Amino acid sequence: MSLVSRDPVLLTPGPLTTSLQTKSAMLRDWGSWDAAFNAVTAKIRQQLLDIVHGHGSHVCVPMQGSGTFSVEAAMNTLVPRDGHVLVLINGAYGKRMAKLVSMMGRKVSTFETPEHVPTTPADVDRLLSADPGITHVGLIHCETSTGILNPLEEISQVVKKHGKSLVIDAMSSFGALEIDARKVEFDAVIAASGKCIEGPPGMGFVIARKSVLEQCEGNSLSLSLDLYDQWTYMEKTTQWRFTPPTHIVLAFHEALNQSIAEGGQKARLSRYTKNYEALMAGMRELGLKQFLDPRIQAPIIVTIHAPESAHYSFKDFYNRVRDKGFILYPGKLTQAETFRVGCIGAIGVAEIRQAVNAMRDALVEMGIYEAVAA
Amino acid sequence: MSLVSRDPVLLTPGPLTTSLQTKSAMLRDWGSWDAAFNAVTAKIRQQLLDIVHGHGSHVCVPMQGSGTFSVEAAMNTLVPRDGHVLVLINGAYGKRMAKLVSMMGRKVSTFETPEHVPTTPADVDRLLSADPGITHVGLIHCETSTGILNPLEEISQVVKKHGKSLVIDAMSSFGALEIDARKVEFDAVIAASGKCIEGPPGMGFVIARKSVLEQCEGNSLSLSLDLYDQWTYMEKTTQWRFTPPTHIVLAFHEALNQSIAEGGQKARLSRYTKNYEALMAGMRELGLKQFLDPRIQAPIIVTIHAPESAHYSFKDFYNRVRDKGFILYPGKLTQAETFRVGCIGAIGVAEIRQAVNAMRDALVEMGIYEAVAA
Ligand SMILES: Cc1ncc(COP(=O)(O)O)c(C=O)c1O
Ligand SMILES: Cc1ncc(COP(=O)(O)O)c(C=O)c1O
Repeated sequence: MSLVSRDPVLLTPGPLTTSLQTKSAMLRDWGSWDAAFNAVTAKIRQQLLDIVHGHGSHVCVPMQGSGTFSVEAAMNTLVPRDGHVLVLINGAYGKRMAKLVSMMGRKVSTFETPEHVPTTPADVDRLLSADPGITHVGLIHCETSTGILNPLEEISQVVKKHGKSLVIDAMSSFGALEIDARKVEFDAVIAASGKCIEGPPGMGFVIARKSVLEQCEGNSLSLSLDLYDQWTYMEKTTQWRFTPPTHIVLAFHEALNQSIAEGGQKARLSRYTKNYEALMAGMRELGLKQFLDPRIQAPIIVTIHAPESAHYSFKDFYNRVRDKGFILYPGKLTQAETFRVGCIGAIGVAEIRQAVNAMRDALVEMGIYEAVAA
Repeated sequence: MSLVSRDPVLLTPGPLTTSLQTKSAMLRDWGSWDAAFNAVTAKIRQQLLDIVHGHGSHVCVPMQGSGTFSVEAAMNTLVPRDGHVLVLINGAYGKRMAKLVSMMGRKVSTFETPEHVPTTPADVDRLLSADPGITHVGLIHCETSTGILNPLEEISQVVKKHGKSLVIDAMSSFGALEIDARKVEFDAVIAASGKCIEGPPGMGFVIARKSVLEQCEGNSLSLSLDLYDQWTYMEKTTQWRFTPPTHIVLAFHEALNQSIAEGGQKARLSRYTKNYEALMAGMRELGLKQFLDPRIQAPIIVTIHAPESAHYSFKDFYNRVRDKGFILYPGKLTQAETFRVGCIGAIGVAEIRQAVNAMRDALVEMGIYEAVAA
């Protein structure tokens, strides 16, 4: 716990590297009942609505816990007891969404494509036509398992055509990829503090259609995860229902301010895209290949095939790269040995280039680099 | 958000004032997959077990979210679908426990005494004899609504005699009041980071009996709040299931270290008791009366009758005292106008005395003090 050495750069999809300014906001203890704190909560809710241009149509409800808690809160509250959710899956987070819906006793159907294949609007059209009992569609915008991007706008149009409700897990895309409520018809978008807004982890939020949320009293089986209750209490009192993570809220607000100062979603996407391109240039130098077709790759997190070498083990590679100052992320695939590199966080091409060089050094040490480059 | 002025001292039962050392631990970004971080998680779990002398018999499972999330996780996981929980109520947190058990569809009975009356072991004996179908008893150790202390050890003996399972919400007592697994037979003790251990809010934890938790697979209706799943995953991988609040975890660890350095639970109780006594001496000077009989008052948070004066409003009093540097807490009673003052947090008698003087100044400004002292 010494502060003597520099901390490594996190190339992970949250927790990620945050700015010192963001972290410094946590050096204060604020009362959760105090007007000053509640003004910060109100400000955050407005700033998050700004990002999706959701004023008028939607409301933002923050929720304690990790991102999954907010996904579960959205499903528990928006889906009536006799609802039927179709979850579109191409990775671990889609599977998780289906699992939590099923655990809470709501009816769930799943449609699964391989991890490198996006769901198409035609898939959704066919599925909704085949089963008119479906009431809700759950979609993972950027499936962080691989970094694959699903076609949000096109799918939203099909869901709208069928008159169903769209719930979007935008955990790893929100704030970087465009989600515009004026173009994408959604009843809920879910994300968290510790992703592309670059705050610390510890809270999530749901941006829900107001006219829908208003109808959701009594749906939730969980008190803690009752989004309706959280929303109405907050509207009435300006406070969170249960103790908020005050330090995280302050830091998240600071991170939101910095994101606006940087130029908002478009500027953030542009920086992450540069990070991604610098990373890909580096991977090409090292002879390492991207798992996904670049046309469906979000510049958020990239899955890279591990070097084909008997000398390779992720653990060894990870430890060596960490000791050089960079934290990588393990792959989440079953069929192929991969590792992942995040492009998000308070970092730029300089850090990405440093990380590429650290990976090169590690591969040389491991006796792999020559083989790969051959 | 300026750092120019000093922040007020929080005389609230969480979030509370934490030490600068604790907050400074949040100036670092740690990866949730990294061994260094997971070693901190493991250390915290051991330190929390130490506090209740629960090694061998119990395990500690941390949980994202506020304290209520951990209460709900414990109930959702420990109580089987056909379980029947008796909740002992003398305030808002007892009511909340009953509500969350009922929302998840488990059978619940309640026994409610007035807010100034502790549940007695005789009550529990009678209730358990009358309804042998009860499987679990839910008890609030220190009911923070008033600060009342319920007789934990005696009630635990009765629950044990009847062979039932005891679940203790020790949110505002854990780490300050004694809870010793060798003397108190419990299946779960629940608390959170931002209370008497003096960390920032953002995570809770459940100390559960290992032999019981082992039997709880599949009980939970909630994925996020599945304590069994959280536990087994952590045992297998050393990691949290979903993104942990890394900054909060680091700060909580720092706070735990400071609590140990201070002398552990006994030293903390002794400091809080001194705070409480200094507060009571001050209240007597101001002619303000304690709501509870001192014999059932925990030195955690004190409910004080508001001055009987037409000039008094809590909001005005609160704002004036806040502007002098101290955050008070509103009363939570329906039948009497009260306010609350916390004795917990990284503060000592100096801060309590400062706060008493600030209250005096505020009451004088409001034209109340003379009337009260008369
Ligand atoms: C797409 C997606 N959904 C859900 C989650 C779950 O969030 P958390 O780990 O904060 O619970 C993540 C986390 O990375 C994610 O990327
Ligand atoms: C006794 C008790 N139980 C439960 C809670 C709920 O905790 P939280 O507000 O963190 O959800 C509190 C909070 O103060 C409490 O004092």
